Amino acid sequence: MAASVNETNDVTLAKPIRCIVKLGGAAITCKNELEKINEENLEIVSSQLRQTMISSDNVVSLDWSKRPGTSDISCNVDSFGDQLSFDANKFIVVHGAGSFGHFQASKSGVHKGGMDQPLVKAGFVATRISVTTLNLEIVRALAREGIPSIGMSPFSCGWSTSGRNIASADLPAVAKAIESGFIPVLHGDAVFDDIQGCTILSGDVIIRHLAEHLKPEYVVFLTDVFGVYDRPPTKPDAVLLKEIAVSEDGSWSVIKPTLQDMNKQVETTVAAHDTTGGMETKISEAAMIAKLGIDVYIVKAATSHSLWVLSGEVRGNVPDDWLGTVIRRVSR
Amino acid sequence: MAASVNETNDVTLAKPIRCIVKLGGAAITCKNELEKINEENLEIVSSQLRQTMISSDNVVSLDWSKRPGTSDISCNVDSFGDQLSFDANKFIVVHGAGSFGHFQASKSGVHKGGMDQPLVKAGFVATRISVTTLNLEIVRALAREGIPSIGMSPFSCGWSTSGRNIASADLPAVAKAIESGFIPVLHGDAVFDDIQGCTILSGDVIIRHLAEHLKPEYVVFLTDVFGVYDRPPTKPDAVLLKEIAVSEDGSWSVIKPTLQDMNKQVETTVAAHDTTGGMETKISEAAMIAKLGIDVYIVKAATSHSLWVLSGEVRGNVPDDWLGTVIRRVSR
Repeated sequence: MAASVNETNDVTLAKPIRCIVKLGGAAITCKNELEKINEENLEIVSSQLRQTMISSDNVVSLDWSKRPGTSDISCNVDSFGDQLSFDANKFIVVHGAGSFGHFQASKSGVHKGGMDQPLVKAGFVATRISVTTLNLEIVRALAREGIPSIGMSPFSCGWSTSGRNIASADLPAVAKAIESGFIPVLHGDAVFDDIQGCTILSGDVIIRHLAEHLKPEYVVFLTDVFGVYDRPPTKPDAVLLKEIAVSEDGSWSVIKPTLQDMNKQVETTVAAHDTTGGMETKISEAAMIAKLGIDVYIVKAATSHSLWVLSGEVRGNVPDDWLGTVIRRVSR
Repeated sequence: MAASVNETNDVTLAKPIRCIVKLGGAAITCKNELEKINEENLEIVSSQLRQTMISSDNVVSLDWSKRPGTSDISCNVDSFGDQLSFDANKFIVVHGAGSFGHFQASKSGVHKGGMDQPLVKAGFVATRISVTTLNLEIVRALAREGIPSIGMSPFSCGWSTSGRNIASADLPAVAKAIESGFIPVLHGDAVFDDIQGCTILSGDVIIRHLAEHLKPEYVVFLTDVFGVYDRPPTKPDAVLLKEIAVSEDGSWSVIKPTLQDMNKQVETTVAAHDTTGGMETKISEAAMIAKLGIDVYIVKAATSHSLWVLSGEVRGNVPDDWLGTVIRRVSR
């Protein structure tokens, strides 16, 4: 196992990855309704990703599946002339589970391990069915927009943990998919754990690992709120933290806004059924990525602000009218 | 790549694998209707697999997904007491594509390679969407029967080819899943090819590779006819070949029946849209497995004959009233 982790350091890409995007579970599913996709948001997110990944405006669907109620498959082969280019900017998509998988995982305690217990083993199967169902739907939504998306389920792609820390991951396979011009789509998944038998590997942890080894230019978290707030965003006096600076030792502080009366301690909400932690995990994961010199943006999905940041235009100088949180490293 | 293949020789299992089962595409899908599962057959096949894999008669579903038209997930946690055992016999399931994937693959020419062509690249995405949709449905059907099934998509699991021969495969991952008590479910898939860019890796080739390296006690092909015939089984005078002997050099001959007037040359049918070959591939793949000393049975899915052979009762002495084809090694 250790050998696999070392191998991942050897991954080199001919052209660097532009961006790793997290599709937050809360942004693409209806968090209060079990196993329900937020179709409207997913469609807008997919369209925004197409606009930022592919230069061509010619949308040709790559999902040649039968539509419900029809017996034929629609696939216009003539559209795929030599002129059509899929030369996508190099992106990786990682999505959370939202209302998929969490129920199955928390009901059975997969995240706590103990594969010798029938309930945990059953939950492992049930969780993987639920999250791979979501993964397939997201791959299809992206493909419908003409994005050459390829589902790469972490359990299948050699991801495992040891004491809940990543022990192995087949990063060369991810790199190979990118070099071949595809957009890998990973997700939070149930995986084997060397010590506790099994656990849930969250999308956020996957992103940190990918960022560390594949060094993207920037990372974007698409979520269901405008960014990170100083207290739960549902509270009326919550303030959006627009800029967080991370120092080389990993500690972080709010740069903007510089409110005198702002609580130093950022309050966060963690939904009861969220087995992988909520905003708190996000900030600390984001800070660890920023520490590497990679800018991290947290922004509301399916808004003009998300399109703005995905396109890379917010980088360098963050405009005043951009709503979101940027987390980046500062040198002293 | 070569290193990965060599690694696969090192796979050892604490307890040998009992059986590798191929769910033929023609048996589990409606071959003449695009992307349609043969629900009735799949249900019977799943039930027969449960009966042969798990000793307990207590069927507890491991698919805790929301059913269409409901808002709740049914999962009876109390069923998973310490008494419930999933101690399944060690099986691997591999399924074909049938009416899934073939359309997308043949329309785009994925099997012929050429990833620099937009149509091939598009077809690669479309094919994977179609075959992983089928894989998910099969994993769910097995899980509903209480089988701890785990989808392991070959593309994701590190399978690739070189000149259409297998160049790499993460067999340790398959072994690990089995050792942990799960039933891996693999399938024919679009994969990368070192030489031609990409190709279609058929379920039959996957089975031969798994059989070679994991040495199951026997292999069963579930198909839509009673076995191998001396000519296309649709012809009225077609004769079922009940026993085929494979010698150590790989050549094979029909032992039973010993008809004088039987054509020596076995005619076979290959459906026009079958990009991975039909019965012809099956016989030669089966002969290569039998050459290793592993008995191969070809039998009609969802019949008493398939239940009989899956349970292992046909082994050794094949009863006269068993309908199917057994292919095994004979020493001179």
